[in-house]
Amino acid sequence: MEKIKIGILGYGNLGKGVELSVRQNPDMELVGVFTRRDPSQLTLNTEGAVAYHIDQASEMKDKIDVLILCGGSATDLPVQTPEFTRYFNTIDSFDTHANIPGHYSTVDAIAKASNKVSIISVGWDPGMFSLNRMYAGAILPDGKDYTFWGKGVSQGHSDAIRRIDGVQDAKQYTIPVPQALDAVRSGKQPELTTREKHTRECFVVAKEGADLKKIEEAIKTMPKYFADYDTTVHFISQEELNEKHSGIPHGGFVIRTGVTGKALEHHHVIEYSIKLDSNPEFTASVLVAYARAAYRLSKEGNYGAKTVLDIPPAYLSIKSGAELRAELL
Amino acid sequence: MEKIKIGILGYGNLGKGVELSVRQNPDMELVGVFTRRDPSQLTLNTEGAVAYHIDQASEMKDKIDVLILCGGSATDLPVQTPEFTRYFNTIDSFDTHANIPGHYSTVDAIAKASNKVSIISVGWDPGMFSLNRMYAGAILPDGKDYTFWGKGVSQGHSDAIRRIDGVQDAKQYTIPVPQALDAVRSGKQPELTTREKHTRECFVVAKEGADLKKIEEAIKTMPKYFADYDTTVHFISQEELNEKHSGIPHGGFVIRTGVTGKALEHHHVIEYSIKLDSNPEFTASVLVAYARAAYRLSKEGNYGAKTVLDIPPAYLSIKSGAELRAELL
Repeated sequence: MEKIKIGILGYGNLGKGVELSVRQNPDMELVGVFTRRDPSQLTLNTEGAVAYHIDQASEMKDKIDVLILCGGSATDLPVQTPEFTRYFNTIDSFDTHANIPGHYSTVDAIAKASNKVSIISVGWDPGMFSLNRMYAGAILPDGKDYTFWGKGVSQGHSDAIRRIDGVQDAKQYTIPVPQALDAVRSGKQPELTTREKHTRECFVVAKEGADLKKIEEAIKTMPKYFADYDTTVHFISQEELNEKHSGIPHGGFVIRTGVTGKALEHHHVIEYSIKLDSNPEFTASVLVAYARAAYRLSKEGNYGAKTVLDIPPAYLSIKSGAELRAELL
Repeated sequence: MEKIKIGILGYGNLGKGVELSVRQNPDMELVGVFTRRDPSQLTLNTEGAVAYHIDQASEMKDKIDVLILCGGSATDLPVQTPEFTRYFNTIDSFDTHANIPGHYSTVDAIAKASNKVSIISVGWDPGMFSLNRMYAGAILPDGKDYTFWGKGVSQGHSDAIRRIDGVQDAKQYTIPVPQALDAVRSGKQPELTTREKHTRECFVVAKEGADLKKIEEAIKTMPKYFADYDTTVHFISQEELNEKHSGIPHGGFVIRTGVTGKALEHHHVIEYSIKLDSNPEFTASVLVAYARAAYRLSKEGNYGAKTVLDIPPAYLSIKSGAELRAELL
């Protein structure tokens, strides 16, 4: 069997997760990892795969079927996805929701001009959560969507705490409020405020001699990040933080409740949830499944930018249509 | 806007549900209902829609974009889907899992020869549950699937009880065992027996003078239907059955747990569940969403038999690709 040749751009948590996920998919092989750092300093986990400098990427265009872009949405992907879609079929996890339409248009024009496929905004939100919102909305047009995130680590919120004067290290968990979940599942379609949906729990290591009261106050009143939430702050030692809070768990819920019937008297609840030990490894696993779809679309000449909403589900699976019908339908 | 013209074949619970669902979708209109009964005896709930005898269906082939087949899988659909796909784009809810590959082949040949689209085995299982098994399996190749059904009414099991000597009426609920659900969600990938996964609860109205002990024994020892389950039997009056057990609720859970990481040390849980007040109305709502997809595929000339695994998600939605990207992604 001809294997699908995968390249990775960026070797942080997500890129490393993609490397590990490729090992779990026997129809794929990792060809190389591209980095802005000195490639000789990278130690890959894959026999036969090579670390390259990012400037060498375009030279590899005929040796890689799909390049998985593992940079961040703030500054990397808005530049990298358009640039590398000139040479490669690409997958990205662009997650700045408000800028997705613009990103799509930019990438679509380049992908079509270059005869490439680019599947953008892949992961779990956007990604699997978007899919579930769409399916549930199409089935129950009279209804209401709810999305809850957590329990999980928010890197952005953890970073925001670390920037506060006197803070040495910190980890922040976003937690859905159980009563809010129950209210949604009841089908009563409640209107929930930001504060009613999630709480925030912070584990903070203060620098020697820092004013704990002032740090706590700075966290709890931080606009956008914490002020609209019920926030709990725990001061702990660096050892305890390292020991108990070094993982990157996450998860969440997409729930739609809706009605059918002559008098819209029948209530229905559709719920999708994930509970992840490792957010980057799960996201990476979604990217890799969509890399298979990008490869197949490219073989068919179905070029352009795509999102998870455009991809026939069977394109993600290693199994054939006949196997899927016999085993999974 | 040109509306999608829908026909319904069969006017039982499912057909009536399709009629109600079409009213919730402003891009569709119901043209007619086809029945084996005397059409003058049908009272439709849709202004402008006409009841026809099934023998008139082929005459209507140019007036209907998609015909939704609402018969049963045992004897109706194996005949009707092939027959009516000669004249119409069709949707069916064929759910005899073991016979799906054969049904697919038969319908595919006819659909391709007739330039029609037929989406088979649509509903929730097969249907939405199949989709979720497939997505989760593609994302977490090292893992295990579990499907639980209920709490809900099984028509087949209720019918089986009604055939027992001395039984006047009956309703049977299939109930997932909470401890089994918890064991699965723990990620430990337990092997569960039939008995460990579901219990069965029966509400039975006995005929005057019937031997209750004998009825209970007959239920609990019935092979395939009840013998492999912990079954509870309650004898109640016809009035109580009518009052408390006249609904057709159902639901269920599809859970996949899997692992990622260097040493496969990270556990993940993906769970999809539905909780339905009306099984036929929910199933009908799924059929109607896929009718939209069949219409679009047919406009593209993408003919043949399809399943939910083949259909790009966006084809189900009334919204455009640009709207979906802006609002749902």
